[in-house]
Amino acid sequence: MEAKFKEIGGGVTAPKGYEASSVVCGIKDSRSQKKDLALVYSEVPAVAAGAFTVNRIKAAPVIVSAAHLRGREVRAIIANSGNANACTGPHGILDAKAMTNTVSAELGVKPNQVLVCSTGIIGVPMPMERILPRIPDLIKQRSARGSKGAAEAIMTSDTRSKSVALKMKLGGKEVRLGAIAKGAGMICPNMATMLCFVTTDAVIDRSELKKATLEAVGESFNRISVDGDMSTNDSVVVLANGAAKNKLIENGSKSARKFRTALSWLMLKLAKMIVKDGERVTKFVVVKVFGARTFADARKVAESVANSTLVKCSWNGNDPNWGRIIDAIGYSGADVQEDMVDIGFNGMTACSHGMAADTPVKQLERAVSKESFSVSINLNLGNADYTAYTSDLSPEYVDFNRAEYAVSRLR
Amino acid sequence: MEAKFKEIGGGVTAPKGYEASSVVCGIKDSRSQKKDLALVYSEVPAVAAGAFTVNRIKAAPVIVSAAHLRGREVRAIIANSGNANACTGPHGILDAKAMTNTVSAELGVKPNQVLVCSTGIIGVPMPMERILPRIPDLIKQRSARGSKGAAEAIMTSDTRSKSVALKMKLGGKEVRLGAIAKGAGMICPNMATMLCFVTTDAVIDRSELKKATLEAVGESFNRISVDGDMSTNDSVVVLANGAAKNKLIENGSKSARKFRTALSWLMLKLAKMIVKDGERVTKFVVVKVFGARTFADARKVAESVANSTLVKCSWNGNDPNWGRIIDAIGYSGADVQEDMVDIGFNGMTACSHGMAADTPVKQLERAVSKESFSVSINLNLGNADYTAYTSDLSPEYVDFNRAEYAVSRLR
Repeated sequence: MEAKFKEIGGGVTAPKGYEASSVVCGIKDSRSQKKDLALVYSEVPAVAAGAFTVNRIKAAPVIVSAAHLRGREVRAIIANSGNANACTGPHGILDAKAMTNTVSAELGVKPNQVLVCSTGIIGVPMPMERILPRIPDLIKQRSARGSKGAAEAIMTSDTRSKSVALKMKLGGKEVRLGAIAKGAGMICPNMATMLCFVTTDAVIDRSELKKATLEAVGESFNRISVDGDMSTNDSVVVLANGAAKNKLIENGSKSARKFRTALSWLMLKLAKMIVKDGERVTKFVVVKVFGARTFADARKVAESVANSTLVKCSWNGNDPNWGRIIDAIGYSGADVQEDMVDIGFNGMTACSHGMAADTPVKQLERAVSKESFSVSINLNLGNADYTAYTSDLSPEYVDFNRAEYAVSRLR
Repeated sequence: MEAKFKEIGGGVTAPKGYEASSVVCGIKDSRSQKKDLALVYSEVPAVAAGAFTVNRIKAAPVIVSAAHLRGREVRAIIANSGNANACTGPHGILDAKAMTNTVSAELGVKPNQVLVCSTGIIGVPMPMERILPRIPDLIKQRSARGSKGAAEAIMTSDTRSKSVALKMKLGGKEVRLGAIAKGAGMICPNMATMLCFVTTDAVIDRSELKKATLEAVGESFNRISVDGDMSTNDSVVVLANGAAKNKLIENGSKSARKFRTALSWLMLKLAKMIVKDGERVTKFVVVKVFGARTFADARKVAESVANSTLVKCSWNGNDPNWGRIIDAIGYSGADVQEDMVDIGFNGMTACSHGMAADTPVKQLERAVSKESFSVSINLNLGNADYTAYTSDLSPEYVDFNRAEYAVSRLR
C-alpha cells in the first residue's frame, strides 16, 4: 500500500461526535488496578459494519454483536478484557445481553444499538457482579479524551496499547478515521484474538461501508499471524456517524475508493502493530509471494511459510534458512515447481531455481538479524501475488504460553 | 490396535535372508566418528513397496527411489544422514544415481534394484567425495548383525536409534518382520522427516504388499506430528524376500489380514517412538476424536488440535487448558457444534456440552502432568473417529531449532 495519510492523535475519538471511557472492574484480577472495561460512544446513530471470527466456536458477544449489527444503527460498543465469555453456554449469551441491555438503559438508546466484545480466558463464566455495577460510571466518564484509556482497557497480553487516526479531504470536507485495537496471542490469518474498533465521521452508504470493511480486513488483519491459532472472539467493528457532513460516499465513486484506501491503511497499520507486539516475539517479517498461478496459491504459500514452526524458529536464531522455507512452500498445497522457485531475504537472493544462490551467507545473516525484514518468494509460474505479515517464534513465547492463562489459576 | 505380536531382536536383519551394515563417511561432520551411511541388503530379489513424502518439493533420492520401485525387484537400500540431497538441482539427481550405481556395481545387481534415501540438511550439495569411496567397505561389512549400526547411521537429531521386529505363524510357517526408523524434526501428518525400512521374509503378492504398506502408513506415520512441518525426504520402504517359504499371501485372504495387522503394529510402534524422541519434547499425547460426522472431519479435528502451537504450549506447562483445545476444534474446518463438544484428559471430563465440567482442576492437572496422556474429544454428531499422536512444544524445542541446522554453519 503506497498511499500516505496524515496521521493525527485522538484514536477512536479523533473523528467528530465520538466519546470513549474506561474503568477498572477487577475482571483480570480482583486485586489489580488494571482497566478492563471500555466504552466507545457515538453522539448520534452511526451506520456500522463488522467482521467476526470464522471459528466455528464463537464467543457469546460475537453472536450477540453480529445479531445487533443486522439492525441499521449503532450508538455504542462495550468491551471487556480478562474474560472471553466463550464456551460459557446459554448463560454466556444472557451475560453478553445483560451488558448491552445495561448500556442501552443507561444511555437511553435501543438495546440493539449497542455492541459487545470480550477478550481473555475461554470457558470461565463472566464475573457479572463485578461488571454490571461499573457500567453507570463507565458511561458517566465518557469523553472526547477517553480513547487512550479505552485502548488500555481492552489489552490482554499486549505490552502497549494500539491506536491510530488520520484525517483527509473528501469532497471538500475534512473526514477523520480513528481506531483502537488489541492483539497479542492467538494471532492467525482470518483474524487473531484481536479486537479493533474503528470510528469515522464520514457520511457513507451502509453497504459501501460493509464492502470497504471486508476489503480492508482482507488486506490487513486477515494477513497476520503469530502462532497460527485463530480465536473465538475476533471482532472488527467500524462505525460511521456522518458528523463530517461530506457528500454521501457511494459505491464505485472516487470518494469511495479514497475511503477504502484510508480504511485499509489504518487497519494495516494496526495489524502490523499487533504482530510486532506478539507475545515475546522478536522479529517482524513480511512474506511476499509473487508469480503464483492463482491468488489462492499465492496465499497458501505465504501462510504456509508464515506459520511454519521450523521457519519461525530459524528466524529467531538469525538463520537465513531457505531450506525450511522451500520445504514449507512444498507442503503448502499450492502448485509449485521446484526448479522455478526463487527465495530472497531483504532483496538478496538466497535460493535461485530451487538451489542455493551464491550470495554470501554473511550478507543473508545480516538481513535476517534485523528486527524487521522481508522474505520474497517468486514461484515464477504466473502473475498472482500475496503478502503476509508474521513474526518469529521464540523460546520465550513458548515459555510465556506454557500456563500463562491457565484455567487452573483462575478458579 | 489391540493385536499383540511376539517381539524379537534383530531389527531389519531379524527376518531370514537380510544383512545390514554401516560406516563413517564424515557427512555430518568431517571430524566426528558418527556413522552416517547405511546399507540394508536382501540375499535374493525382494518384492517391494514404498510410500514417499507428498511435499511438492521432493529430494533427489525420493525421485530416484520412487522410479526404481517401479521395477519389480529390490536387492538393497543405501541411506545416509547429514545431508538430505534436497534442493540440489539436476546435480542432486546425478549424485543419488551415483550412489545406487556404485552399490549396484559392487554387489553385481541391477541399478534399479537399489534404492537410496537421504536425511539431513536441505540445499547443500552432497559430499560425494566422502561417500562413494566408503561404499565398498559398507558392502563388505554387511552381516546379519548389522541392523543396530544401520539404525544409528540414519539418525539425525534422534537421541536414540529406533528398531523393532516380530515373528508370527502364517499358514504353519514362521514369518518375521523387522524395521529400523529415524525421526526427530519436521514431523507432521503425511509423514515426517522420517525414514523407515521394513524387511520381511514373507512370500507376498506385490500388489497386496503395496496395499498393506499404504494402509499401515495411514495408521501410523501419517498420524504423528511434532512440529507440523512436512519434510522433503520422508520415505517408507518395505521389502519382502520370500525366504520364509510360506504360502503366497494374496489380497483378501486370512493371512493377508494378519500380515496387514502385523505391519501396522510394527509401524505404529516406530511412529510412537519417533514422537517420543521428538526434538526436546517432554510429553507423548494421544488425541482421540470420536463422534465426527465423517472420517475427514475426525481427522481435521485431531490434526488441528495436535498441531496447535498454543495447545502444545499448554501441555508443556501441565495446564489442562481445554479452552485452547475447543478453539482449535473450532477452526479445524470440520463440522462441529459447540454445545455438543465433550473434551477429556485421560478419561476425566474437562468440558461437557462445550462448557467447563465440574471435574476438579487438580485432577485434570495430574493427568496432563504425566509424561504420556490422552485427550479425548467427542463431537457427538456421528460415528467417525480418528486418532493422532503428538507431543508438547517446549521452549527447548524452539531453542534447539533456532539455528541447529543452520546452512551458514555448514559453508
